[in-house]
This record gives sequence, structure tokens and C-alpha cells, in this order.
Amino acid sequence: MKAIEEYVRSIPDFPKKGILFRDLTSVLQDADGLALAIDSMQACLKDVDVDVIVGAESRGFLLGMPIAYNLHKAFVPVRKPGKLPCEVLSQSYSLEYGEASIEIHKDAIKPGQKVVLIDDLIATGGTAKAAVKLIEALGGEVVKLLFLIELPDLKGREVLRGYDVDSIICYEGE
Amino acid sequence: MKAIEEYVRSIPDFPKKGILFRDLTSVLQDADGLALAIDSMQACLKDVDVDVIVGAESRGFLLGMPIAYNLHKAFVPVRKPGKLPCEVLSQSYSLEYGEASIEIHKDAIKPGQKVVLIDDLIATGGTAKAAVKLIEALGGEVVKLLFLIELPDLKGREVLRGYDVDSIICYEGE
Repeated sequence: MKAIEEYVRSIPDFPKKGILFRDLTSVLQDADGLALAIDSMQACLKDVDVDVIVGAESRGFLLGMPIAYNLHKAFVPVRKPGKLPCEVLSQSYSLEYGEASIEIHKDAIKPGQKVVLIDDLIATGGTAKAAVKLIEALGGEVVKLLFLIELPDLKGREVLRGYDVDSIICYEGE
Repeated sequence: MKAIEEYVRSIPDFPKKGILFRDLTSVLQDADGLALAIDSMQACLKDVDVDVIVGAESRGFLLGMPIAYNLHKAFVPVRKPGKLPCEVLSQSYSLEYGEASIEIHKDAIKPGQKVVLIDDLIATGGTAKAAVKLIEALGGEVVKLLFLIELPDLKGREVLRGYDVDSIICYEGE
């Protein structure tokens, strides 16, 4: 059986020069790779008490939804501005150049609900931290942050200090 | 037990005046609604021989991935321009509120593979038809198009004549 790492395709200089892009689509376009990705991530949740899976647009949707279905939990999307139709909370965060923001429906999480945040990749942790702020602003408790891929050199865990962070594949020193 | 329709929230004048937006997030943010949506769609595939699930960005990701996982099939995303890192095919189309194009990785589907296209909603059928063209350009065979919600007044089935189209919830005469 192939290891999960073997399904990830790496593309130099995407989306811009100097970035080695880790491609999730090469994992998912193989039925065995897809199953292995979901099963590996879900195994990290076997002792976790969770009510809601939150996934960030849009690769967090891909990984978060099968896990939400399998665990019979709710799924809440965190989206780019203007995509959610009802009342939202917004949170801005810094990118390498400039700023971006993400939104969540105000009624999507009830106070006291236990939340796992799922995304494909953690780099600087900026998006994840913004999502955590939104979840907590709604009264949710972030019990875990779970990523398929981690780039530890970009120190995302430092931004998320105090939270339970887990990843399946770790690309160090690249 | 609630019917699937009861989980769908309808928002007037989103994303612009005159559009009654059918909100998928209200379905997914309830664990029972999420399970019912996926189970209802998957039931439509029980006699369908399929190799690959294709989902359109980004609500097609939400519904397509759990079904791909459950059936142990590959999942291939159709994305907005510039999001896919490898060589792509592009297809432009007109939609309810403007003009757009979508892309697919050239290596995502192999000639002869049987493909089910999944999305949250069929309105005019523009996005779906563009996705069908991409799948067929790669040699894939579209064996079914499956939607959670159908707006039959916008005649999407006419654009997709000759294809097997299925939907779970139908909003007629609105």
C-alpha cells in the first residue's frame, strides 16, 4: 500500500515564484489516496468529543465534509467575503502581501459547542487563527485543529499556541 | 424526521435583487440535515457504475466528497481559473448572474472513465454543461448529473438534454 505522502504532487513556483505547492488534487483523484487521507485524519479524532466540523474555503470543504458525515456531525463553512447569504461575522488576517478576510454565519455555531477546524494545509497559521477567532466569537470551543499537510518551517503552531494542533504529513526543512 | 426541504433556508435578494437564494449551509450545519442530504443523493447512485465523482467549486466539493469517500471512488474538482496548479483545460460559460469559466486538470480523468457530476444546485445548467464539456474533452463518460436542488423554471435540463439528470429537491413555479 502506498503511503499518503506518495499521493501528494509538489509543484514548484505555484501560485508564485519560490513557493513549492503541495497539491491535494493528486491525492483525491485516486480512490485509495482519497480514502487514506480521510481515514488518516479521522483517526486523529477518535478520542475527541466534537459537535461541529468547521472547514475553510475551499480545500477545507473537501476534507472536512466526509469526516463530518462519517462522525454524524454538523459541518460549518468558513468562506471568503460575500459568499455566505445570511448575517456573518468577519475576521481579517495578514497575508505575505496585504490582507484577506473570512466569514462565518452568525447562527452556525451555538455557544458551548465543541469545534474541530479542518483544512488541507497549515503554513503560517494565519487563516487558521482567523477561523479560531470567528469560532470563539460565536462561543464555540476549538478542541482541535487538524491538517493534512504541515509546513513547520513557517511556524503555524506558534500562532496557534495553546491549541491542540495535529497534521498527517510534515514537510520540514524545504 | 424532518424532510430534506425543511433544512434549506431561502434568502430573498441574494446575491442580488430578484434572486431567491437556496442556502445549503443551513442543511449542513445540522448533523441530521447533512446526513440526509448525502444519503438522499447517494441513493440515486446505487445502480450507477461510476469511477470518478466530479464536483464544481465550491459547493459541489461539499456534497461530492462524502459520496466519493463512501463509494470508494476518486474525486476531481472543477475549479475557478488559476486555482489548479498543473496543466488545465478551460471552459467558459454564461451563468445566472454573469460570465465565468472553469478549469479541470488535464490528467484528472482517463479516457473511458465513468463520471458522475455533483453540485448543490441546477438553475440554467450553464456550469454543469461547461463541466460536462471538460469531462468529455478528457475522454470521460458522463453517466449522471446529480444535484441536491433543482430550479426547473430555469430549464437546466434542456441544456443537458440526452444526459441522465437527477435532483432531490425541486422548487417549481417560484
